[in-house]
Amino acid sequence: VPSVAVRETLEAAKPFIHPWIPIVSLTKGFEAGSLARMTQVIKEVLPSHPAAVLTGPNIAREILAGQAAASVIATEDLAVASALQQVLRGGLLRVYTNHDVVGCEIGGALKNVVAIACGIAQGLQVGDNTRAAVMTRGLAELTRLGVAMGGEAATFAGLTGMGDLIATCISPYSRNRQVGERLGRGESLEDILGSMNMVAEGVKTALTTHDLADRYGVDMPVSESIYQVVTGELSPDEAYWGLRRPGHEAEPG
Amino acid sequence: VPSVAVRETLEAAKPFIHPWIPIVSLTKGFEAGSLARMTQVIKEVLPSHPAAVLTGPNIAREILAGQAAASVIATEDLAVASALQQVLRGGLLRVYTNHDVVGCEIGGALKNVVAIACGIAQGLQVGDNTRAAVMTRGLAELTRLGVAMGGEAATFAGLTGMGDLIATCISPYSRNRQVGERLGRGESLEDILGSMNMVAEGVKTALTTHDLADRYGVDMPVSESIYQVVTGELSPDEAYWGLRRPGHEAEPG
Repeated sequence: VPSVAVRETLEAAKPFIHPWIPIVSLTKGFEAGSLARMTQVIKEVLPSHPAAVLTGPNIAREILAGQAAASVIATEDLAVASALQQVLRGGLLRVYTNHDVVGCEIGGALKNVVAIACGIAQGLQVGDNTRAAVMTRGLAELTRLGVAMGGEAATFAGLTGMGDLIATCISPYSRNRQVGERLGRGESLEDILGSMNMVAEGVKTALTTHDLADRYGVDMPVSESIYQVVTGELSPDEAYWGLRRPGHEAEPG
Repeated sequence: VPSVAVRETLEAAKPFIHPWIPIVSLTKGFEAGSLARMTQVIKEVLPSHPAAVLTGPNIAREILAGQAAASVIATEDLAVASALQQVLRGGLLRVYTNHDVVGCEIGGALKNVVAIACGIAQGLQVGDNTRAAVMTRGLAELTRLGVAMGGEAATFAGLTGMGDLIATCISPYSRNRQVGERLGRGESLEDILGSMNMVAEGVKTALTTHDLADRYGVDMPVSESIYQVVTGELSPDEAYWGLRRPGHEAEPG
């Protein structure tokens, strides 16, 4: 279920769900307008149900092909997490638990914006040195925002943060990376989105991230550049050169 | 200069180097036996010279091709670092400064072992989900060792840690990744090294990392698996399955 349809889907499903059944979000985005995380939407619509999120470096096509992968189930009550872990794991899919719902959810959503940036770098053929730098800067800034929003820094260094970000940025099957790559090759966003039959959450998340960065007072140069591309203020080429401005790449010390 | 030849090269050059001239290491490895970092070797052979390290996500072939890249010059005296920054930067190569010599040097060396692990995953065609997980686990464990050795955690999250690790793991031009990829496809280490005319430091660094992990009491499952492949105790296929053991992938919480 894409983020735009989660609330209405939950409302429609509500009469048919037994009390106390946990609701697991697989959606990687925020609700437009409210900027709510998906488990916050679940708690609002189904307040008596435990809300959880399943997230990690999980390119669906690889899991469908039977390849090994690791995922994380995050919910505040670790007894519920353990029960869900038993249900969800199987074959070569390993499932780990984490109590940091906020951190897991934010990493999964914000990494899609970085994947668009990485895709643009790929489309512009600027090399792996630059792609690696974009991923590094991207993880640093989404960690800053995530911690400001109540997530734990360690979560962003784990499978649901760095792991998911890298998988999405390097996999040719990532829709968000594909959007960026086609932008980098000169296609218009309208044409790209019109030709895709699946949702690229990163485009909407770029708008949300802009608002969240503003609300929490966090500087997010990579995401802000993608926001400006999505809103038409910058061309992908200009965004790339903006990402290379010195102020965005100062090292500690 | 490969790590094995740094001390003798410095000894040979010593009579010809003016006093106080800074010595910059571009070598990403440790000295065999002493387990010394390259700037430690510089300080031993040329004690009156400032020792620095230049490191970052810098696949040489891309820089030679004129593509943009960012690098870091690390030395204890930031005045010296700034002077070197002016000398080294140019064109599309940006150079940042860092005072954390230990962290910069360790990240640059240890990432080559993770690159071999990633190459094995590539050679075994296990998918991008797994490659992303190996990079994430690899950075976590080399950060643990690096902090135990006196480096700063923030350094490992930056260009010289995560950035260099990702570039080396994803670039088809990385020698260490190539070694892993050919191991994963079933070639013997002897044949691979015999066919390369450049040094793959990661093979030697896998031996050093095993000793350093032991000395500092740090658990390093990814690097240890590569050590066992390099020493012939495990096949690449066995190492891959070992990397997927649950004990190696517990999430926080």
